[in-house]
Amino acid sequence: MAPSYKLTYFDLRGRGEAIRFILHHAGVAFEDNRFPKEQWPAIKPTTPFGKVPVLEEDGKPITQSLSIERYLGRKFKLIGKDEWDALQCDIAAETLGDFHNQVVQAFFNPDAAKKDELKAAIIKDQVPIYLPKFDEQVKKNGGFLVGGQLTWADLHFVATLQVSCDMLGSDVVAAFDNLKAHREKVLNLPHIKAWVAKRPTTPF
Amino acid sequence: MAPSYKLTYFDLRGRGEAIRFILHHAGVAFEDNRFPKEQWPAIKPTTPFGKVPVLEEDGKPITQSLSIERYLGRKFKLIGKDEWDALQCDIAAETLGDFHNQVVQAFFNPDAAKKDELKAAIIKDQVPIYLPKFDEQVKKNGGFLVGGQLTWADLHFVATLQVSCDMLGSDVVAAFDNLKAHREKVLNLPHIKAWVAKRPTTPF
Repeated sequence: MAPSYKLTYFDLRGRGEAIRFILHHAGVAFEDNRFPKEQWPAIKPTTPFGKVPVLEEDGKPITQSLSIERYLGRKFKLIGKDEWDALQCDIAAETLGDFHNQVVQAFFNPDAAKKDELKAAIIKDQVPIYLPKFDEQVKKNGGFLVGGQLTWADLHFVATLQVSCDMLGSDVVAAFDNLKAHREKVLNLPHIKAWVAKRPTTPF
Repeated sequence: MAPSYKLTYFDLRGRGEAIRFILHHAGVAFEDNRFPKEQWPAIKPTTPFGKVPVLEEDGKPITQSLSIERYLGRKFKLIGKDEWDALQCDIAAETLGDFHNQVVQAFFNPDAAKKDELKAAIIKDQVPIYLPKFDEQVKKNGGFLVGGQLTWADLHFVATLQVSCDMLGSDVVAAFDNLKAHREKVLNLPHIKAWVAKRPTTPF
């Protein structure tokens, strides 16, 4: 029997949306358990390390968004053709993480002026480090991040970079032709398109 | 023919030592290419995303320390007995990363007073969140982090947490019996013991 899945996360895309993308793309039914942020203090102590997302597989909790995505990616054959490709998926996701974590940290800065300053610095200094290299990578790999075929890294990348853009208040992808085409392609995958059309609207 | 390996990193343990632990434990010869920090500005633009460690496998560069370790872990059969265990290795390493990244950020704070304050806050607030849970996990798993056998997560954990301790200026592991025994066990693995006895002495 296929395992049952339940994803517990805020009513946000955030670090949960890439997991939703992978499950939807794989055609796997799951319970999308979103909680309002007022409930977080009550939920936090029930999670393995005080963090979400948590994905339950047949009731067994799994934490760490990248660990969850990689596990599902392997299970649903979204890791490319061999272990070298699987490695490239990991590197792409972890490198985007280096960028995205800076965005998240800026976004949650409690000082509004400092927050704007940090966001502007990311657009000015960090976008030109990361996005041209990812654009080149997609160009070299036939329109995908890894090995000329769709992997979980592509789903992760599009879901997560959209959150980066929303937090920055700027579509930093728009200036990169290969990344724009990559985003369009991922968002037009049939199950992803259907999900994006019906998912709850959230700020990020 | 077995692949050749060359690791390029600062003359530090830092984010490179766990890779060295895995290669040494597996009995794999590699070039331990350490550069003095004065050379970093010249080396940085030669790396894929401006970061080290970089491990070259037969001349092909691999980045992102956790991606490298996981890839080697799978290659050298250090991921437990099945994909569920491999997932638990990932979760353990990424969860320790959440702790360790806070330590690194505190350690490199340019304001000396602020640095001390952040380090004290980690010892007071973060150690009690993470270490008791890891201690319990090792207890439950027969003295290892995952599945009652040695995995790359154990090698990662001991190498990395030692760096956390050095940066905090406090052996925060010492109060946790299962973690202390775990550390002893890993440091007494024959190849690890031989490596630690001869490796360069560095501050972290």
